[in-house]
Amino acid sequence: MSQPLYVIGHQQPDTDAVCSALAYAWLKQSQEVDAVPARAGEVNPETQFVLNFWSVQTPPLLEDAATERLILVDHNEYSQTVPGAREAEIVEIVDHHRIGDVTTSNPIFFRNEPVGSTATILTHLYDEADEPIDSETAGLLLSGLLSDTVVLRSPTTTDTDRVVAERLAETAGVEIETYGKDLLQQKSKLGNKSPREMVLGDFKEFEFGSHHVGIGQVETVTPEAVLEQQAVVLAAMDDIVDEREFTTLLLLVTDLLDEDSTVLVAGDYTDTVADALDTTFTDQKAFLPGVMSRKKQVVPSLEDAFS
Amino acid sequence: MSQPLYVIGHQQPDTDAVCSALAYAWLKQSQEVDAVPARAGEVNPETQFVLNFWSVQTPPLLEDAATERLILVDHNEYSQTVPGAREAEIVEIVDHHRIGDVTTSNPIFFRNEPVGSTATILTHLYDEADEPIDSETAGLLLSGLLSDTVVLRSPTTTDTDRVVAERLAETAGVEIETYGKDLLQQKSKLGNKSPREMVLGDFKEFEFGSHHVGIGQVETVTPEAVLEQQAVVLAAMDDIVDEREFTTLLLLVTDLLDEDSTVLVAGDYTDTVADALDTTFTDQKAFLPGVMSRKKQVVPSLEDAFS
Ligand SMILES: [Mn+2]
Ligand SMILES: [Mn+2]
Repeated sequence: MSQPLYVIGHQQPDTDAVCSALAYAWLKQSQEVDAVPARAGEVNPETQFVLNFWSVQTPPLLEDAATERLILVDHNEYSQTVPGAREAEIVEIVDHHRIGDVTTSNPIFFRNEPVGSTATILTHLYDEADEPIDSETAGLLLSGLLSDTVVLRSPTTTDTDRVVAERLAETAGVEIETYGKDLLQQKSKLGNKSPREMVLGDFKEFEFGSHHVGIGQVETVTPEAVLEQQAVVLAAMDDIVDEREFTTLLLLVTDLLDEDSTVLVAGDYTDTVADALDTTFTDQKAFLPGVMSRKKQVVPSLEDAFS
Repeated sequence: MSQPLYVIGHQQPDTDAVCSALAYAWLKQSQEVDAVPARAGEVNPETQFVLNFWSVQTPPLLEDAATERLILVDHNEYSQTVPGAREAEIVEIVDHHRIGDVTTSNPIFFRNEPVGSTATILTHLYDEADEPIDSETAGLLLSGLLSDTVVLRSPTTTDTDRVVAERLAETAGVEIETYGKDLLQQKSKLGNKSPREMVLGDFKEFEFGSHHVGIGQVETVTPEAVLEQQAVVLAAMDDIVDEREFTTLLLLVTDLLDEDSTVLVAGDYTDTVADALDTTFTDQKAFLPGVMSRKKQVVPSLEDAFS
């Protein structure tokens, strides 16, 4: 028998990564492909809320992909892949980020588009395959889209995302703003998270030239809940820099209502970061007016500055 | 004024690279984008025949792309790009090869599909944009498709290519086999080419780990015209290895009628190549039954063997 094909999102999975893995695996299954949805880490509370809401089982954790065949969704760089992915066979990629360092030996299907979510692209892949989208699938895709675009408020949101969201909401039978606010509330729940958990909850790693840079993001309606703990959060960041040998570590604390961010910095090259983000740090903290998107408003400037 | 956007194929351009650059630039122009078709090297006789046949001007040569904005077609690795592409801004990619080493700072549109030609994908992009394909554009796209697939005979040919070819031929008003045979004849014209020109005419470079590997291909209905000059061809290959510091250099001499290839080898790691291609070399020559595609039947095995 042939091996199953795992459809899997990035480490520290967010709602778009998990829901895209599920929706794409189901599309492949409808085409008689032995595809299995998987995840590369623990689901966050927002994603758990989504899975409960639509009565969908959490996909299994894939711990080592070294001997597997993989479809990557919602990422295309090795520093974000499931362990073992460098040794695995990558057979497809669907993503909406910058083009990363994944290479293949054979020609593969790679669909990357500058839209607000991987879920947006998957909606089009269902259309291209002439496969109808049922209400459950629409609910998951809508959740990925609204989560990534902060309910269509992030500057990453495109007209395409708006059209797709309307249509998915209709099929799913929910109202975008109402359902979206429920999602935002989940995303904002810091609950009794430790400072370390805040930093690493939604976390991405990048190799910029020889620099190993980590960027966490907390999206919340109550940024003061994080910022009033600044000293312990920075101490946690220092620990992570040491343990995981980061050149530089950033935490974006994004205010979902005011649509701006405060950034905390640990590690070296603070001046490079300040230049890149056109700001100055006071006590390792800076305010970034209008910044909501790590991918679009932070990563490109940092990459330029570090290389 | 904003900069123009150059749409450009790989170095040593083939018909698919040139025709795809033209067709995609025209699609972009129809969408009010200031796109300009370009090429990264001299056009070969087959491509010149196509441009004459459809009365289309040869796109201009771009010599240095360092300060430009680029759409890459028919390639996605730096070793095959126009000079300066590493410094340029890559804003889109449309291709049908393995995923290479091009990275970007921002999310971009990247459409890679395992089909027989970039022209096949571009036909679908016209459809998605609801832009009609006129007979001239259909003629160019059909030429790219038939050239890359050796008139639908190469193992890289998919059912999608067959459907697209039928449709393009109808719009263009030509018959696939008749027009295709005219193309094959052009491809086969070795004319008064020097051995060096035979090796470098349709030539691709690859970085496999630390190995710098070059693979030329001559597709012809008269392979004996190349092979009876084996000694001088191998001498030319030795010179190229020295000048351009190749680890290994291959020349595939592909018999379009018998649908197989003879491979000549120069440089080091001959045993690695023999293992990879499951053959043995006698006097630096080996026969490869059933092999027609550099991309699908040679590159993946070599990459595996060299890394
Ligand atoms: Mn996403
Ligand atoms: Mn091609």
